[in-house]
Amino acid sequence: MLAGLEGSPPLLFAKNGASPMEEAAAAATVTVEEMQFWVSNLWLLMAAALVFLMHLGFACIESGLTRAKNTVNILFKNVSIVAIGLLTYAVIGFSLMYGVDVWRGVFGWGGLGIAPPPMGMTLAYHGHYTFWTDFIFQAMFAATAATIVSGAVAERIRVGPFLVFSAVYVAIIYPVVGFWKWGGGWLDHYGFYDFAGSTIVHSVGGWGALAGVLVLGPRTGKYVSGVSRPIMGHSLPLATLGMFFLWFGWFGFNGGSVLSADPGSVSLVFVTTALAGAAGVIASMVTSWRAQGKPDLSMLLNGALAGLVGITAGADSVTPMSAAIIGAIAGVLVVFAVLSMDRARLDDPVGAVSVHLVCGIWGTLAVGLFSPDHSLGPQLVGVAATGALCFPAALLMFSGLKATVGLRVSEVEELRGLDITEHGMEAYAGFEIWHTS
Amino acid sequence: MLAGLEGSPPLLFAKNGASPMEEAAAAATVTVEEMQFWVSNLWLLMAAALVFLMHLGFACIESGLTRAKNTVNILFKNVSIVAIGLLTYAVIGFSLMYGVDVWRGVFGWGGLGIAPPPMGMTLAYHGHYTFWTDFIFQAMFAATAATIVSGAVAERIRVGPFLVFSAVYVAIIYPVVGFWKWGGGWLDHYGFYDFAGSTIVHSVGGWGALAGVLVLGPRTGKYVSGVSRPIMGHSLPLATLGMFFLWFGWFGFNGGSVLSADPGSVSLVFVTTALAGAAGVIASMVTSWRAQGKPDLSMLLNGALAGLVGITAGADSVTPMSAAIIGAIAGVLVVFAVLSMDRARLDDPVGAVSVHLVCGIWGTLAVGLFSPDHSLGPQLVGVAATGALCFPAALLMFSGLKATVGLRVSEVEELRGLDITEHGMEAYAGFEIWHTS
Amino acid sequence: MLAGLEGSPPLLFAKNGASPMEEAAAAATVTVEEMQFWVSNLWLLMAAALVFLMHLGFACIESGLTRAKNTVNILFKNVSIVAIGLLTYAVIGFSLMYGVDVWRGVFGWGGLGIAPPPMGMTLAYHGHYTFWTDFIFQAMFAATAATIVSGAVAERIRVGPFLVFSAVYVAIIYPVVGFWKWGGGWLDHYGFYDFAGSTIVHSVGGWGALAGVLVLGPRTGKYVSGVSRPIMGHSLPLATLGMFFLWFGWFGFNGGSVLSADPGSVSLVFVTTALAGAAGVIASMVTSWRAQGKPDLSMLLNGALAGLVGITAGADSVTPMSAAIIGAIAGVLVVFAVLSMDRARLDDPVGAVSVHLVCGIWGTLAVGLFSPDHSLGPQLVGVAATGALCFPAALLMFSGLKATVGLRVSEVEELRGLDITEHGMEAYAGFEIWHTS
Repeated sequence: MLAGLEGSPPLLFAKNGASPMEEAAAAATVTVEEMQFWVSNLWLLMAAALVFLMHLGFACIESGLTRAKNTVNILFKNVSIVAIGLLTYAVIGFSLMYGVDVWRGVFGWGGLGIAPPPMGMTLAYHGHYTFWTDFIFQAMFAATAATIVSGAVAERIRVGPFLVFSAVYVAIIYPVVGFWKWGGGWLDHYGFYDFAGSTIVHSVGGWGALAGVLVLGPRTGKYVSGVSRPIMGHSLPLATLGMFFLWFGWFGFNGGSVLSADPGSVSLVFVTTALAGAAGVIASMVTSWRAQGKPDLSMLLNGALAGLVGITAGADSVTPMSAAIIGAIAGVLVVFAVLSMDRARLDDPVGAVSVHLVCGIWGTLAVGLFSPDHSLGPQLVGVAATGALCFPAALLMFSGLKATVGLRVSEVEELRGLDITEHGMEAYAGFEIWHTS
Repeated sequence: MLAGLEGSPPLLFAKNGASPMEEAAAAATVTVEEMQFWVSNLWLLMAAALVFLMHLGFACIESGLTRAKNTVNILFKNVSIVAIGLLTYAVIGFSLMYGVDVWRGVFGWGGLGIAPPPMGMTLAYHGHYTFWTDFIFQAMFAATAATIVSGAVAERIRVGPFLVFSAVYVAIIYPVVGFWKWGGGWLDHYGFYDFAGSTIVHSVGGWGALAGVLVLGPRTGKYVSGVSRPIMGHSLPLATLGMFFLWFGWFGFNGGSVLSADPGSVSLVFVTTALAGAAGVIASMVTSWRAQGKPDLSMLLNGALAGLVGITAGADSVTPMSAAIIGAIAGVLVVFAVLSMDRARLDDPVGAVSVHLVCGIWGTLAVGLFSPDHSLGPQLVGVAATGALCFPAALLMFSGLKATVGLRVSEVEELRGLDITEHGMEAYAGFEIWHTS
Repeated sequence: MLAGLEGSPPLLFAKNGASPMEEAAAAATVTVEEMQFWVSNLWLLMAAALVFLMHLGFACIESGLTRAKNTVNILFKNVSIVAIGLLTYAVIGFSLMYGVDVWRGVFGWGGLGIAPPPMGMTLAYHGHYTFWTDFIFQAMFAATAATIVSGAVAERIRVGPFLVFSAVYVAIIYPVVGFWKWGGGWLDHYGFYDFAGSTIVHSVGGWGALAGVLVLGPRTGKYVSGVSRPIMGHSLPLATLGMFFLWFGWFGFNGGSVLSADPGSVSLVFVTTALAGAAGVIASMVTSWRAQGKPDLSMLLNGALAGLVGITAGADSVTPMSAAIIGAIAGVLVVFAVLSMDRARLDDPVGAVSVHLVCGIWGTLAVGLFSPDHSLGPQLVGVAATGALCFPAALLMFSGLKATVGLRVSEVEELRGLDITEHGMEAYAGFEIWHTS
């Protein structure tokens, strides 16, 4: 320890002008319980910031795995969705998801807006975080579901209708499903378990993605004379950045879902999350290396995400060894899901359905298989119920938009690229290219 | 809870070799007040790290919104400024900003360097963080002001003179203005309020940016025969990365400015910051969509930053609803400011003046409009006083450098690109380009 | 303070369905010592997440400083290594590094896997963090050593043999050296000091890098008729992103190595880390500007990393002023090391040996020079012992792989690029290029 460390000049002012004495007086009144509240609240805020960064992750992986001519469009959608998600969640989403039960555990409502009502209130919402922390952590989650859809419908959907779909999906569909479980609704009473959202977040997004893929149809040129043609992503560094941001943010997504800074639970969640992601990488590497003869980077990226989606439902309630197994199975599943989707002529440019729906379902069921505290029955019901609401709802919305304002750009526009036709600008300009060897 | 979680092998050593018993003994002596100190200190350090990442944000958005041929130059400037900012703040900046009042609340001084003086010292600087935490959090802020200037003068300024300007601006001008408010100087006594720096950081940078734009003149080819010609950014993914890093870092910039981990204040700041950014995105989207006919990604990015700059002065003292309104107005303002600057032939390649000066002023005044605890008068005085020091000072420095060593590269160098002429290297090399469809 | 902040609607449910009363009851039982445990544990988990992001940093800087045609290969290696590192560390690494001494402080072992044994266990591993936190923080470190090697052998090594080398290096060599010091082995008893791993992590990686460079030989076309030909990095924005992520993560790498959230120590480490990095930037800028006539961005990036590697061994035990001096010397050293390596025809594409080995040794010795609590002798022994194990081991492994399965791609493959030949895909596709001026 340095001697210098011991001190500080009494001559320096605090930034906010409060005197050391005033602060010391204030500090003297705190209790141990309040400190626990401070620590947990801080962790949830950090976790909210980490989840925020996942939106950058989605923006990067989606644009990286698609073509340069549609990059502005994808980035535009991802930036918009964060904003739409935060604002609609403030206006109605949070209230729909965490309000009081207004009809049989199916619908909740807590009033318009997020201003706490003027009676019976306390700074400590409950023992671990403030009302505002609760809101911001949940709001960061909300936009995720819609963002997952974005990748599946990329390179052919019109920007206006997509924003309309996203706004409704994030403002209504996601919070309603969320209420069923996390808001204390019927799925919660039924014994369904979904720790951080393999179903509540990832499958909800995945069902929307599947509906979008079906209604839109494949990209022009993807399936020619019955043959699937690979359409390469325009920037794998961008896609890799995206995977790393998603993984990094997942420590907040899963770790924050402990809803306190409880050392045992949060640290276990970090370990299960990390090992599932790692096992997803290795499993998808081995699987794709065998299946395709060469080690494929994009499969590695999807393998990591598959493992992470897979562990999300049970990150707090399985052992690290089980987490690795769950992640590994997800890593295998995602490779076969991507190949199967392609064989079925379902064109999902970034593999969103394979990663978020298939592995979201797997992860939810895995809780019933690997955790002694949960059983498979309620997990199956939760998976089915979520699909039963989300898939038809998304199908209806996409079909409605298609029949009215139109959903898809013209073939000419698609070939030219959505950046020029929808936004009047390009993502890249004026590169100086050297050929060094 | 897993059974396995309960335990750990007593056979494992701690990394630092201390025995569990020694540590337990040490732990036994802590008080609740010390724990509050630990939590707040930890949050401020995390916040400092987040603000550090904002410098990456600036590097990305500035280089993304300018041409490929000037990318090395911009990255070079942004990396250098962080280093210069940290070192000069250690030598004199911190002392100028948080020293004792040496002349009527206008100048402060606390001695050269950051070694705490050898008397009357205590580890707890005041109730919430150590002397070193205070320094590093403030030091991370310091470089920001100079970095803001960097974008405005991009693509035509010589690297040497720019570094000289930056060093002086960050070492002297920023800390002097900072002393006026955060160091307890005359603006603080006058009742001026600027929570995290709409004026103290962003306007200070914005005034420097405006001075640079005026002294340097527009980029060659920007205004030809009275017509403004768009010069497209070379990489919108890079610019989008930058916006996300800035927003992510802003949770530390604003959240850390609470100067403790107080749950109510920090969580409110997270909410107001997030909603203002989101509202800025939506407002700029609508405004530019209407004004330009197409939804413009770069306006979205500037809209997010506009909302964030706008909320910075009052993030702790307005309601979330007010924050959204402040952000939305900033999002509209920034679009018109960018268009007005262009009409006035003021060539600011990244919109730094529009984002940081215009919205910095707006955010500062908004505190007087939306917070019941503050009034407009002192806010106007703070805005004016900051401009009255920073703008002439920056004008003088830029003009002085122009008249002596020269400020601008030659037209030939500008056309060739500053990467080759100033640095002898290019940002991109040897791409393999496929045309997949 | 807002009135609204004070409260929350009692009608809202907690996400996990626990009632406020239950949680309050639980909260009532905590002690101050437990809170200290909570805070420190939280910090170590955040630090682990930050170190995780360093792997993105390595992926970016390595791919940015090499050619576009080998980018998929480099990204693939970096993603794989994280996964391999986490999994092998779980299976044997952690046990080898922090197990009990089984032979004279040279080898440790704690059993296969990471499941805590079923006796004598407590949630609080020791006073500051859980068993799982300990594991995940250390596991994030482990992969770093192998990642350092990756850059040095880039653009010519076959992916399969590299993965084999990495797996062995991270699973066995790194933990054995780690045991010597951090596991309480012979170097620790000898008085060797390495706070966060200038030697234990960076030199271990650096020795492997040097061995790889020697066994592989230079890239085709690097040295032609005795003349060194520059091979430019394909994306300096990517490299700059990498440097920033590494620096950002280093706050967790060094700050977390305090192994608690002790305010004085962690904040000092943040300051020494930041100032050493900054001094490395400025020193390498001045040195390379003088040596090469132009300010070189890649030297700036390496200068930052050099300073950070240099301070890693003594970040907690030198003054901020000493940290700046150590960083500045590292910044000078790295420039001359890069130039010397090139003169010696040792082709290290990203300067890994210069940054991690040369500055790792310097930083380790600097502890003996600048810290009053440590002396030069044990530092020299630690440096030598680490080299004496790692360099021959790496040399043996690389030579063995070369002699058996083959280590290097063919010249044809190298010219075509490893992305196509090893992975069957390219990193970039379909760019639309504008020439705006």
